[in-house]
Amino acid sequence: MHVADRLTAAVASTGSIACVGLDPRPALLPPAVRDAAIARHGGGVAAVAAAFLAFNRGVIEAVAGRCAVVKPQVACYEAYGTAGWEVLAETVAAARAAGVEVIVDGKRNDIGSTAEHYRQAAFGGAPGLDGAALPDVGLGGDWLTINGYLGSDNVGAFLDDADEHGVFVLVRTSNPSAGELQDLAADGATVAERMAGLVRGWGAGRLGTRSGLSSVGAVVGATWPGEARRLRELMPDTVFLVPGYGAQGGSAADALAGARPGAATLAEVGLVVNSSRDLLGAWQQAAEGDRWQDATTAALERMNAALLAGFEAGGQEPVS
Amino acid sequence: MHVADRLTAAVASTGSIACVGLDPRPALLPPAVRDAAIARHGGGVAAVAAAFLAFNRGVIEAVAGRCAVVKPQVACYEAYGTAGWEVLAETVAAARAAGVEVIVDGKRNDIGSTAEHYRQAAFGGAPGLDGAALPDVGLGGDWLTINGYLGSDNVGAFLDDADEHGVFVLVRTSNPSAGELQDLAADGATVAERMAGLVRGWGAGRLGTRSGLSSVGAVVGATWPGEARRLRELMPDTVFLVPGYGAQGGSAADALAGARPGAATLAEVGLVVNSSRDLLGAWQQAAEGDRWQDATTAALERMNAALLAGFEAGGQEPVS
Repeated sequence: MHVADRLTAAVASTGSIACVGLDPRPALLPPAVRDAAIARHGGGVAAVAAAFLAFNRGVIEAVAGRCAVVKPQVACYEAYGTAGWEVLAETVAAARAAGVEVIVDGKRNDIGSTAEHYRQAAFGGAPGLDGAALPDVGLGGDWLTINGYLGSDNVGAFLDDADEHGVFVLVRTSNPSAGELQDLAADGATVAERMAGLVRGWGAGRLGTRSGLSSVGAVVGATWPGEARRLRELMPDTVFLVPGYGAQGGSAADALAGARPGAATLAEVGLVVNSSRDLLGAWQQAAEGDRWQDATTAALERMNAALLAGFEAGGQEPVS
Repeated sequence: MHVADRLTAAVASTGSIACVGLDPRPALLPPAVRDAAIARHGGGVAAVAAAFLAFNRGVIEAVAGRCAVVKPQVACYEAYGTAGWEVLAETVAAARAAGVEVIVDGKRNDIGSTAEHYRQAAFGGAPGLDGAALPDVGLGGDWLTINGYLGSDNVGAFLDDADEHGVFVLVRTSNPSAGELQDLAADGATVAERMAGLVRGWGAGRLGTRSGLSSVGAVVGATWPGEARRLRELMPDTVFLVPGYGAQGGSAADALAGARPGAATLAEVGLVVNSSRDLLGAWQQAAEGDRWQDATTAALERMNAALLAGFEAGGQEPVS
């Protein structure tokens, strides 16, 4: 099935547009998880890997069926080298086993002949010594975040004819210095708006028959709601991946600023909203004796309720 | 020592500005290497990993002392998941053991708090469960290629106070579609030229005392020599990493177009020139019975001679 149709179906079945960021860091681990890993592996990289994997499996169990998608941040794993990559692979496998779609957040990019290998890393298909694709190699993700600075031969290397996998291209990011390049005026628009035009072009002819959305999505930060409305005009058929909600400062209304105009249900807004620290750190607010995972589930349900309320209050209204 | 001073010292001691791209692919392996891996490991991912590592070690042995730096392309390894990352780590370790500086070509980027983890992946310093940096985790590279689309909080996360590590920011890439975004007119300059201005700013105050070059380098493709001259004006104190030489179409004169004006020796041109396929595939032209590594060495020496001749013929001349 077309990757955007699968994502839209996940939103419809779960009633959630939340994307759960699987960004494990030592400081974010519940004490029980950390202590068990130390007891078994001591204090080295093996302990980190064991703790990350146990934590991620617990988070996936707590959010499966209640979110649209999960998004492991590759950097958090890659920092631990080979051991970290193994945890990343196991994490994607755990999400797939739980029936949850996966965005591999790697922000990859290169010239076309090299980008092909990043595609293999995210989705599979790397060749063996005889040239034939190896089974069970590659993360097996559904989407990959990419950087579009190198243009269409980079982007094209990530796509397949059936659009079974998709990309989210960085258009407008959520960080403080995003505007240094992205806000420059370029031929009557900003650089971000020009990137939006490229994204629309790359996705033309790649729309899912059910969702009407393309396999070429866009990263549009929740910290810039005015820009998100403008970017929706430029990318009407594009799924937005919206970072910056919660810990980074964006509200539910901000996060929904880029919703498709006239969406009648959450499944039609054409965006997913990422949260990581607020969900992964929810156990810190839990009462003593409670299971840490219950705090994760409760935090996700609060996020879902806030996004639904924001949608019903008119987050989908056209630009004022 | 400052990372740009180390690189310049390597150019001076080897007489080479060549960067050897360590981009293993199954189709590029000498038959002897491939056959040995199949005999020992069969046809799966373990055989690919064994062949890549044996090949890389052979290439490093063939080029050490004759090139300025080596550059593993992360995508080629990442395509093979955990096994590939282990080969990447062993390859960087082999280069370091041979006394060769390493550019980790990952083109990484993210918001600052995440980019920090990519820094750890490339250079080390990831924390254990007690928060203290783990020894011997991270690739231990000298430089990392990065994408500057997210601006200064991304770039800053990769740098250290002593400039012991550096970055190469994508400014003008060597691929056919590079211009779709990079050539857009932005406030009286191209997007690539605006990126060059950012790179110069990020590197200000980060100049090596010996080389006068900064720890914030730039990727400037050899396929666009006119642009390289213009970019050198905008980035006088920046090391250029020049891809696109050889297989991608750039000549020695093209590759040297971005040399610092007035450079009296190769050690002063402020750039390194990458070649991968022409060097890694050199064994294909070797006579039967010759060691495949000798063909690699010979191809590198031809490249060094061509670059030296191009330099002496005036590759360092100012813009005409």
